[in-house]
Amino acid sequence: MAFNKRVKIKTILEQNPIGQEITLMGWVRTKRSNKNVSFIALNDGSVITNYQVVADPNLIAEEILKKCTTGACLKITGNVVESQGAGQSSELNAKTIEVLGEADPEKYPLQPKKHSLEFLREIAHLRMRTNTFSAVFRVRHALAFAVHKYFNDKGFFYIHTPIITASDAEGAGETFKVTTLDISKPPRTPEGEVDFKQDFFEREANLTVSGQLEGELAAMALSEIYTFGPTFRAENSNTTRHLAEFWMIEPEMAFYDAEDNADLAEDFLKYLISYALEHCQEDLKFLQSRLEEEEKSKPADQRSEMGLLDKLRFVVDNEFVRITYTEAIDILRNSNPNKKKKFQYLIESWGADLQSEHERYLVEKHFKKPVILTDYPKEIKSFYMRQNEDGKTVAAMDILFPGIGEIIGGSQREERLDLLLKRMEELHIPIEEMWWFLDTRRFGSTPHAGFGLGFERMVQFVTGMGNIRDVIAFPRTPGNAEF
Amino acid sequence: MAFNKRVKIKTILEQNPIGQEITLMGWVRTKRSNKNVSFIALNDGSVITNYQVVADPNLIAEEILKKCTTGACLKITGNVVESQGAGQSSELNAKTIEVLGEADPEKYPLQPKKHSLEFLREIAHLRMRTNTFSAVFRVRHALAFAVHKYFNDKGFFYIHTPIITASDAEGAGETFKVTTLDISKPPRTPEGEVDFKQDFFEREANLTVSGQLEGELAAMALSEIYTFGPTFRAENSNTTRHLAEFWMIEPEMAFYDAEDNADLAEDFLKYLISYALEHCQEDLKFLQSRLEEEEKSKPADQRSEMGLLDKLRFVVDNEFVRITYTEAIDILRNSNPNKKKKFQYLIESWGADLQSEHERYLVEKHFKKPVILTDYPKEIKSFYMRQNEDGKTVAAMDILFPGIGEIIGGSQREERLDLLLKRMEELHIPIEEMWWFLDTRRFGSTPHAGFGLGFERMVQFVTGMGNIRDVIAFPRTPGNAEF
Repeated sequence: MAFNKRVKIKTILEQNPIGQEITLMGWVRTKRSNKNVSFIALNDGSVITNYQVVADPNLIAEEILKKCTTGACLKITGNVVESQGAGQSSELNAKTIEVLGEADPEKYPLQPKKHSLEFLREIAHLRMRTNTFSAVFRVRHALAFAVHKYFNDKGFFYIHTPIITASDAEGAGETFKVTTLDISKPPRTPEGEVDFKQDFFEREANLTVSGQLEGELAAMALSEIYTFGPTFRAENSNTTRHLAEFWMIEPEMAFYDAEDNADLAEDFLKYLISYALEHCQEDLKFLQSRLEEEEKSKPADQRSEMGLLDKLRFVVDNEFVRITYTEAIDILRNSNPNKKKKFQYLIESWGADLQSEHERYLVEKHFKKPVILTDYPKEIKSFYMRQNEDGKTVAAMDILFPGIGEIIGGSQREERLDLLLKRMEELHIPIEEMWWFLDTRRFGSTPHAGFGLGFERMVQFVTGMGNIRDVIAFPRTPGNAEF
Repeated sequence: MAFNKRVKIKTILEQNPIGQEITLMGWVRTKRSNKNVSFIALNDGSVITNYQVVADPNLIAEEILKKCTTGACLKITGNVVESQGAGQSSELNAKTIEVLGEADPEKYPLQPKKHSLEFLREIAHLRMRTNTFSAVFRVRHALAFAVHKYFNDKGFFYIHTPIITASDAEGAGETFKVTTLDISKPPRTPEGEVDFKQDFFEREANLTVSGQLEGELAAMALSEIYTFGPTFRAENSNTTRHLAEFWMIEPEMAFYDAEDNADLAEDFLKYLISYALEHCQEDLKFLQSRLEEEEKSKPADQRSEMGLLDKLRFVVDNEFVRITYTEAIDILRNSNPNKKKKFQYLIESWGADLQSEHERYLVEKHFKKPVILTDYPKEIKSFYMRQNEDGKTVAAMDILFPGIGEIIGGSQREERLDLLLKRMEELHIPIEEMWWFLDTRRFGSTPHAGFGLGFERMVQFVTGMGNIRDVIAFPRTPGNAEF
């Protein structure tokens, strides 16, 4: 016998079925009672809004009402009537209440009071039951769906690139090893080395740092593809911007040059934000107030100039600034913080790697807009980026967002076999291991480009959450693999 | 200067822009030439159809035409004209051809002849350039998009559950270890054990075998969620049905019982197949012919009774059979292969675990329909499944598909804390480590259910590909982590 005969709160708010008998199921957020009536605010996760249930103690037994405490799960049947109070147009007059699951007020940690984000991180298994986190994860869902819809509508194909890989050619950082060997007593070769021939994959294997190289293989067959999967960095970074496990979106397109790449990236980011603005209005309004509240504890000059929604609309409505690395260096060299030695890393000459402080200056102080920085010195970028004719720079692109820093990194790829081989030799990339990657340049090579979007940074930007650990359900960081 | 001014072949076929000058980019599949004209079949991966380009040697230099060999990448500008030949309504009269990338006919492995699937698996980096694999990966994309669309339309939220996890409570099989320790010389405790406190997560960590438990946490806050991510099994299975790394879809729903769960699963599978039938007609037609061709080498009684498209339509149009495990045992016990001892594992009594041969008999011989098998003995199922009132069975469900076997496994979950704890004790599940999972039963518990769909098995079913390694871009199996 099917149990799921409930109506979601989202549906009730949309349809306002005054006069109908319905069944609601959800969790108690708060209960207020007096002698004559109890008001229960119920939430089922479908929307941020709680729905008000009115319980008459003449109809509902006292022992039931007693159990309707914060966190308890209820099944309530009753009639939808016009609401007396302000704020919502209807409410439910309860005929029957069944307590599906109690929540002992002495033990349930999510009592209706203010909890710090730090505390909620410790109980990540329950935090999605709060307004803040339910809003964040609904927005995260909407953004993920928008990613798929955007690319599907454009005729891109979603490719699942491998998570376990034996190649670590990108050199994007420290990797996690994957093994089935007994770490306590690994098998050894006669020379005393660990015998990885006896490991599951008969060689050393890692978790992927990027699906790009495999994405390129697919783009050289299907023209336009994207990946959306988990990637990993074993870096000991305990910051608000780093995770050991995070999700990346990596489109890769045959027949695109650097400008096509930047055009796509800008259009894509604007689409994602527009989608959230259209589909997550209530959640974003809530997150905007949350952010305002949070910023009240900051000094006035560190508060956002715009509210969350205005900031999102601003990004959608304005063209991103596009400048070259060389232009950026000129701006930075002549900037006040550089002249007054306020930067931790002073910009002295062309070739310097840009730090977060420089990126933030460009985006937040100088342009006050998202910035697409292009044509970086080849020395500070990866081997596979297309070499420009000046012999010094590559067709790289970083997109910098206010408050977030680098949100996208990408480039036109080096499609010319001879130039690619030369660069790989210079950088000591193991050419033999990369035979499959080089085959795409040997057979039917073509100009192509791509980029990577860090999904959590995007969710941070749209939700206004300051710590990246608060936009993924169960964050993985040094020392943390709980849940 | 933007390079991407081409028109996709898909768009040309849809819009048939007779008389317009356009630019095509893509890879040569074949070229036929005589003294007066060359015909180039170009493919850009957007559709399975090659587009015919007509090159007049008076307009296009001989040295260019010579390089237009199979696999070469071309940029062709010309006029769309009505086609003289049969098969397609327009073709391109080339004005200019630029060879973007050559493909030496002496070296390029994908010459226009029949290649075995085994050979193509060795060159997985190029196989997407064939008709078969481009079709498979376009269908795979369509199915992945359909997954997201289905759940998004129903108000489910997509949750990214962790890939690296310290819990292995499900006991679904051998796991891969994830570590940053030096396997050759791991740090040791004073007692000589490996000191995992010095590992990245300060404890032992593995790759996930399922996102279910974390999915349950989210469902107990947002009501209806799903995961779609990679999962891992370190099993030494070299079969056509197993991968070490594969993608799973795991919806988890508060307020669903076993029947709601089965209803959703059946509806979901039918939606996915309908979506592919609607959006991948050309690719499926091609894959149907491929399968017919492949089956010609089989004995007549092992060939499919229906063509691929008919089989897909049959599943969409017919109700799945729903029977209990107990009923299935009765059928199997009295079946011919059991009585004639043709099964490798004879069914003698209630409680026996069903093997692939039994599942195939039920689905392919007895019912000739997908079968939803429910209410298995608790001994052969996981600890978290809801215990039925008979004291012997649990509210499990497996969905069995012809040719594939188990495509979905799921259950109503045990929401009653006392019964769950008792079962965990019986099975020696580490209760303390699972405090977070148990909290969902302590606070606001409710009937809920969910299931897991192995995405690659679904792609196999829809594409008719016999080997699971041929439906994922870069398969991971024992000894294989190439690309």
